[in-house]
Amino acid sequence: MVQATALPRNEAGIEAAVSVLKQRFGDRLQTGHSIREQHGHTTTWITNQIPDAVVFPESTQEVAEVVKTCANYSVPVIPYGTGTSLEGHVNAPAGGVSIDMTKMDKILEVHAEDLDVVVQPGVTREQLNTYLRDQGLFFPIDPGANASLGGMAATRASGTNAVRYGTMKDNVLSLEAVMADGTVIRSASRAKKSSAGYDLTRLMVGSEGTLGVITELTLRLQGIPEAIRSARCSFNTVDDACRAVMMTIQYGIPVARIELLDPMSVKAANDYSKLSLPETPLLLLEFHGSDAGVLEQTDMFGSIAEEFGGFDFEATSSVEERNKLWQARHDMYWATHALRPGAKGLSTDVCVPISRLAECVGAASAKATEMGLIAPIVGHVGDGNFHALPLIDMENAEELAKAGEFVSWLNDLAISMEGTCTGEHGIGQGKRPYLKKELGEATRFMAAIKAALDPDNIMNPGKIVAD
Amino acid sequence: MVQATALPRNEAGIEAAVSVLKQRFGDRLQTGHSIREQHGHTTTWITNQIPDAVVFPESTQEVAEVVKTCANYSVPVIPYGTGTSLEGHVNAPAGGVSIDMTKMDKILEVHAEDLDVVVQPGVTREQLNTYLRDQGLFFPIDPGANASLGGMAATRASGTNAVRYGTMKDNVLSLEAVMADGTVIRSASRAKKSSAGYDLTRLMVGSEGTLGVITELTLRLQGIPEAIRSARCSFNTVDDACRAVMMTIQYGIPVARIELLDPMSVKAANDYSKLSLPETPLLLLEFHGSDAGVLEQTDMFGSIAEEFGGFDFEATSSVEERNKLWQARHDMYWATHALRPGAKGLSTDVCVPISRLAECVGAASAKATEMGLIAPIVGHVGDGNFHALPLIDMENAEELAKAGEFVSWLNDLAISMEGTCTGEHGIGQGKRPYLKKELGEATRFMAAIKAALDPDNIMNPGKIVAD
Repeated sequence: MVQATALPRNEAGIEAAVSVLKQRFGDRLQTGHSIREQHGHTTTWITNQIPDAVVFPESTQEVAEVVKTCANYSVPVIPYGTGTSLEGHVNAPAGGVSIDMTKMDKILEVHAEDLDVVVQPGVTREQLNTYLRDQGLFFPIDPGANASLGGMAATRASGTNAVRYGTMKDNVLSLEAVMADGTVIRSASRAKKSSAGYDLTRLMVGSEGTLGVITELTLRLQGIPEAIRSARCSFNTVDDACRAVMMTIQYGIPVARIELLDPMSVKAANDYSKLSLPETPLLLLEFHGSDAGVLEQTDMFGSIAEEFGGFDFEATSSVEERNKLWQARHDMYWATHALRPGAKGLSTDVCVPISRLAECVGAASAKATEMGLIAPIVGHVGDGNFHALPLIDMENAEELAKAGEFVSWLNDLAISMEGTCTGEHGIGQGKRPYLKKELGEATRFMAAIKAALDPDNIMNPGKIVAD
Repeated sequence: MVQATALPRNEAGIEAAVSVLKQRFGDRLQTGHSIREQHGHTTTWITNQIPDAVVFPESTQEVAEVVKTCANYSVPVIPYGTGTSLEGHVNAPAGGVSIDMTKMDKILEVHAEDLDVVVQPGVTREQLNTYLRDQGLFFPIDPGANASLGGMAATRASGTNAVRYGTMKDNVLSLEAVMADGTVIRSASRAKKSSAGYDLTRLMVGSEGTLGVITELTLRLQGIPEAIRSARCSFNTVDDACRAVMMTIQYGIPVARIELLDPMSVKAANDYSKLSLPETPLLLLEFHGSDAGVLEQTDMFGSIAEEFGGFDFEATSSVEERNKLWQARHDMYWATHALRPGAKGLSTDVCVPISRLAECVGAASAKATEMGLIAPIVGHVGDGNFHALPLIDMENAEELAKAGEFVSWLNDLAISMEGTCTGEHGIGQGKRPYLKKELGEATRFMAAIKAALDPDNIMNPGKIVAD
């Protein structure tokens, strides 16, 4: 494991705040070790830093009470959704109170005519989509995990649909948040567009709990398309596959999903999901539109793929076959782990301009091989975002050091290609040094915003802009 | 005219800064009255507040020099694009230096494979699209005026294509800006998506020059669609037209444009653009896609329109006819002025959830009539955004007061419908009181951000969050 830096603890303040909150929240404040450990747990390679208490509020007003109490005693507050973030986002380097949002899981209002929905932050993406299905609506953002929508907003998450529907930044219309002094704000109206002042919605989306706690979200919805068609196509090289992707995007084919699996990932999917795909670079695609539209899109992609030596091209509108394919894609994180039982996958998350994608993926593969690392690669290639996932024996210090070197090298490479160290996972604790490399002086202004909105540094300290 | 509040002037500082800048920039610093007056001019009903000097930098470094000099002497800096904003954005209530960006008008890099372009802020939208046409690319955001891209970013502009392509917030990938202390920052990488820290791009977009001066923009581009088809359809009532719009959006028909003209606006267009449209509520539409796709979309819309009593439905793919129709739409601001020669149109800009649109447009029409105002209405109705434009004799104090009452009433109405007082024009000086009504406590946090990034309040003071 990688040791995260501990920050000074305000012992007296923590004791006082936890005692006040215990009195107020009774059984809805927990201090048992295992529950605290679970709330410091992230699907990550960074060591746990556990909070001193976990509180389960049921309303915005209760969240405001928790924050005000913590503010009174200068005690850290760490919002917690489902704990599926990857960069130590829910760790408590200075201790403090974890606010578990899972009891705030109500879908408050569906405005079908306006294609939006108002939800509490503990609602998960699958819960929302199950609820909406009968109304012919869906929410398109789909990170691998069944994350909470508040957590997804906080990390500016995306997933396989982003190439068509954007990321959380594009799909949160407005939000309510409790700020560091306990004030409740609404960032914007429910109008589809606005020029009303600074874009606080987009500032809070991706702020990882460091500026406030999101307590309500108004999200854009989409109508479930008349027709959905999935396809897969194998290629001889990653370069061929990436060139086919580039041309597909340039032709303006409105693909809903276009995902790359490298040969090692295809092997993992074959084993884990009992498929028999050719173990060469593979693209998985999905098309949304009218019946005629998706057929046309599929055909256009087919012609492009052929130009780049694509083979075993298969398309289907069968729900069952589609689900099987995409379930395999969503299970990739676990499937790749099965390539080396007992190992832990350290997910990288670089995103580069698409013109540099083939080069970046190719270099990542070659570097991993050269370093003797097993590192399958999957990618949201329509956006230029991919995950190389070195599988590491966490007890082996030498291997862990090598993985660290690989991650660092890959982040630097992406930055040198005018890309970013994180397309969708966020900065958290793990990527702070790369944020500085990537954006330089701009991070000083991020720190100034943090200091202005949270002068006592109680909101999820030690993340994003902390030194 | 409406008197804008003057702010205290730092006479000694202004004199010193202008003298230093004069020495540095020579003829590229102007202090003649008429040029200063022109740079305080906005297409607006707010009185001019002219700057003390106008400087014409040619590079980011020169902008940084100007800002540093002004920062040294605590002198206001007001960025200026084409002066087409509508809410007093380029006024100089405390005097200071107008930075005219028109000499920074280079298109720096076109990345056709990545569908992006890097431009200086003085490039206008028409200049960019003319440049891109041969490469089969275009930039979709189209406010009425041929505005500069820097100005469009600063006001979070949009226009008729927003229903499909979004607003400036969705189409600026990254930007370079000179901050209040003269530091040059880059807000993001050139990757299509990112979770790298606070979203400074979106914070600067719509900040109206109050946080920094935008000196470079990386913009998303679109491929020119294989086929474009325009259509128009008349309706008996605004309500019918709005219901047709709502159903079109709900059906997921990817309209590129869907614009409403009320009967008075149709009359204005007929007169100004020599058309002979039925003088009833009218929808103008545009569809982008494949040849088959645009035909399918047009047919689907046709069926929807029929359900709501639409008539005189006509569709065309002819470039000439299309251009004529859309030129008429873009000329509406001037066309409506011809309804009452000598009068000035005071553009409102509310945006409401689409389910409230028909009610809001209807109420605005009725209120104008009740008040004896001539107020044609045009709207980007796919977004719920519309402009009622009372035509006012600016010398008539009573009429002006009535217009003020109308604007205030309409903004309040939109806010009560969970909408915003500004869909695309921005806050500037004119809408500050409504921003507070709309977002309440949130404006306090906007002010905190402003104070943190610009502690001496030199960046376009008196706009957005000023009291």
